[in-house]
Order: sequence, then C-alpha cells, then structure tokens
Amino acid sequence: MSTPDPRLSINQGTLKYADLATALRATAEAGVQAIGLWREPVQEVGLATAARMLTDSGLRFSTHCRSGFFTMPEGPARRASIEDNRVAIEEAATLAAAGAAGSTAVLVIVAGGLPQGSRDLIGARERVRDAIGELAPDAAAAGVTLSIEPLHPMYASDRCVVSTLGQALDIAADFDPAVVGVTVDTFHIWWDPDVLASIERAGREGRIATYQVCDWKTPLPADVLLGRHYPGDGVIDFGPMTRAVMASGYDRDIEVELFNEDIWATAPLEAVRRTAAGFEVAVSPYLTE
Amino acid sequence: MSTPDPRLSINQGTLKYADLATALRATAEAGVQAIGLWREPVQEVGLATAARMLTDSGLRFSTHCRSGFFTMPEGPARRASIEDNRVAIEEAATLAAAGAAGSTAVLVIVAGGLPQGSRDLIGARERVRDAIGELAPDAAAAGVTLSIEPLHPMYASDRCVVSTLGQALDIAADFDPAVVGVTVDTFHIWWDPDVLASIERAGREGRIATYQVCDWKTPLPADVLLGRHYPGDGVIDFGPMTRAVMASGYDRDIEVELFNEDIWATAPLEAVRRTAAGFEVAVSPYLTE
Repeated sequence: MSTPDPRLSINQGTLKYADLATALRATAEAGVQAIGLWREPVQEVGLATAARMLTDSGLRFSTHCRSGFFTMPEGPARRASIEDNRVAIEEAATLAAAGAAGSTAVLVIVAGGLPQGSRDLIGARERVRDAIGELAPDAAAAGVTLSIEPLHPMYASDRCVVSTLGQALDIAADFDPAVVGVTVDTFHIWWDPDVLASIERAGREGRIATYQVCDWKTPLPADVLLGRHYPGDGVIDFGPMTRAVMASGYDRDIEVELFNEDIWATAPLEAVRRTAAGFEVAVSPYLTE
Repeated sequence: MSTPDPRLSINQGTLKYADLATALRATAEAGVQAIGLWREPVQEVGLATAARMLTDSGLRFSTHCRSGFFTMPEGPARRASIEDNRVAIEEAATLAAAGAAGSTAVLVIVAGGLPQGSRDLIGARERVRDAIGELAPDAAAAGVTLSIEPLHPMYASDRCVVSTLGQALDIAADFDPAVVGVTVDTFHIWWDPDVLASIERAGREGRIATYQVCDWKTPLPADVLLGRHYPGDGVIDFGPMTRAVMASGYDRDIEVELFNEDIWATAPLEAVRRTAAGFEVAVSPYLTE
C-alpha cells in the first residue's frame, strides 16, 4: 500500500454512511492528509465538538459541503435559506480554523433548481446572484470563500441552475475573489467544449476555490445523482483539466467526492484506500510535471 | 378536437412501435401536415416504396433521422459509417422529393460518443469535423443539408460528443449553410446559459436546418434516453427559444420527437393528437406573435 498523494482530500460525501468520527479515522488511518466535511454529520455532533474532533484528527480541512439552494423568490423560504447559509458560513470558518495548517475556509455553494412549478430559469439564475450578493458581506467578515459549483446540466431543473464553469465565473465576477470563487469538479464540466478555456479564465481571475476530481461513466444509474466513480474508473482524461488547474498556481488540496451506492457500501477505510489508489494513477501524474 | 398547428411535424421517433404505414396514417388522420421519418422503418419497406407511401400520404417531409456516428478513428468501421451516411443522404433527398410541397431535405446528424475504451474527447470531436468534411460534397450534390444535432451533455460519452449549439455552429462554420446546418432541439439545449445567443447566432449564420420542441422534467427515467415529454408537460419555457428561432426567419416545420415508453405505449393516433394538443398550448402562441 503506497502513501496517498499528499494533496488528496477525501470529501465526506464519499463515506456517506460513516459518522464524523468514522470518516476522520478512516481518512487519517489511510494516510490521507485532508478532508472535506458535510454539514449534517457535523451538526449531528455539534459544531464545537466537530471542530475538536477535526483538530484531534490532525487532518487539514479543505471544504464545507454544502450550502446554497436559494433560487426561490422572496418570502419566508428564501429568508430561511439565507439564514441557514449564514450558519454554514460560520461552520466553515470554525472548521477551517480547527483543521491542521493549510486548511482552507471554503463553503461549497449549490444554487438549487427551478422552484416548484416554475419554468423561469433565467429568473432563478438572477436570484442566485442576488443571494450571493446578500451573503458576500457575511462570508468576507468570516474569512470564508463562497465556492459556486456548476453542476452537470442534467441537474439544471431540480438541483442547480448553474450549469457551466463560465456561468459560475460570470456570477462570481461581481465579487472579490477572496469572497466568491468557483468549484471546479471534473464530473460536472468534463463534457464542456469550453472547459479548458474556462479553467484558464478561473485561474486568471483567482477564482478556483477548490478542485475536485471524480470520474464519469455510462450507463448512468437509475438515480443519476449516484453515477460518480473513482478517478480512473470512467472515461474522463484528467490530464488536460488538471494541468490547466495547476497552471493557474492552484496549491490547495484536491478533493474526491463520490456519490455511488457501491462505494457507500464499501468499508470506509477501504473506500478511502481505493480513492487514493485511483487518484495516484489518474491524477497524481499531472500534479508534478 | 381542434386542428393541429399547420407547422407541427410528427417525428416518427414519437411512434417508435408503429411501422411506416401506421405512422403516416396516424399523422395524416390527426390533421398534422408534416412528418419526420426514421431510417429503419423506411428501410423496412424499401426506399422506393417508402417514397411512394409518403407521396400518397400528402404529408410534407421535414427531416430524415438519423445518421452520423462517426467518431471512431480511421479504419473499416469508419469507412462503413461514412458509406452508410452516404446512403442516408440519398434517402433524405429521395424522401424530400416525394413529400408534399414545402418538404425539406434535412438529414439529422448525431455525432456519436467516445469510441470504446477511449478518453480522447477532443480527438473524437475533431473526427466529427473530418467526417462532415468528407460528406459535405455528397450532401451538396444531393441537395441535402446535414443538420448537426447537439445532444444534452449527459449523452456526451456514449452517444454524442457535440454537446452545445455553439459547438455545433463552430463545426458547421467551415461549410456552406445550405450543406451543413444545425438541429435546434429544446430538450438538449434548454439549460445552456448561452442558448438564446447561440440560437440568434445560428439564425444569423443561416444554420437552423430544423427546430424541434420537446419538454424536460425530472426525475429522469432509468434509461435517460427516454425522458422526453410532450411540450407543456415539463419545465421548459418554450417562449424565449421559439421567439429566437422565429426571429431568425425560420419558416419550416417544427418537429416533436418523443422517446418515452409511456408515449410509445399509447395508440399512434392518440399520441399524435396529444402531441398536437401540447404543441398548441406550449409552442403555437409564440409562432404568431
């Protein structure tokens, strides 16, 4: 068993059925140095306890997942979402401070889909920009970067109306890059004819808050959310995108987040080890060129 | 039962289990004036017979579906594909000549996915351009427009490496617009933040060979090919895209092509009538503004 790449970070979504203690232990035991956490397992133990557990693990903290979901029109549901996003910002700041040196205070933002019964995609996208604008001062005060994640267009209606990296950058452009950045996740954008130009633009504009690698293959599972695969198991060539991210000067951890029933059914330590093995073959060669 | 919109064309894919005679009869009996045909049911009766049947139906012919699938590297499989595309061009020309006045000689081109075992998306896309270049003289000689169809990015790996309208237009740009155009299908491109600008560009460049309307909704079915819905049954706002197509001066028939097990299980005449009813509510208002 070789030592995992020092830049690999395990996103807790890869270990969906593990509680926080298990996820931290499996990640550290495998020799991985960093982790991205999810809000629900953090809230399950409470933020202060989660922060102590993270400190004790010795792991770096790479991102907090996830917030956003603010495409609805003004009203109580939108107010509740904005308030919940403020809580998420505080969580991200606290956890980043609790992680080992090199931790980053990044909150991944998934915009949300079309509101129930709505066909107004353009309006939903405008409300994403409005929400980011409302949250940006809180993020700045907390030292947290809101990292807008474009999701694959197959999720545009029910999960995320931000579908391309270029679109995420257009939204981010109104804000300070330290406060609003973008999530570059290969699974969501590998198909985009403009992907390399968009990554170069993201780097030039100082917007790459987190780089995440995940493979794609077909047929898609019945639940298309769960078709994420270990790097190397699918059809994505990680070379060009990874080189473009590295050429931007990106020096943070690189997460692997896998929603996949088979992987979730794997023992956490084994899932982390397989992730590290895939990463080493499919991604690491492009980090050290 | 109101009279169907005179610009509606039923794509035979909507009536997958109907043979050519049944498809022609159901379309005409419902009062629809045009049809788009598929190669397999045409070949089942033979091209000459199909052409006679089409003439006898009194219907206009709007497109021939479908050809392409030429992303593989040079070799016997690629040669076979190119030859088969030449056959498809002749079929399209023959059927367009056999249809009623106003028929259009349009061959829909689906590029094909990544070749088995390949991760070279950029190379596959280059081979699409090469194949179009090889076929363009044949299409020009036959008076047929090769209509490149961008397919939704969820099909990028296994079906079509052309994923956006802008990308299709970039490929088409090397060729005469009478010979190489694009298929504008709402289902595939509705999510694209650049969709309206791309439709305007397509119009300006004279490339809209066929406009097709089809709705999107989630959850997607287990086979994501089959999630196409009657206009109005999903979340697409047909107004902006239809207005943009009409503003370009598009004056051809508008097809509805629905891959959907429930619709395929519907009696053909009833499926045509439901298609016409959906079209009238969701699309027709934007044709006559």
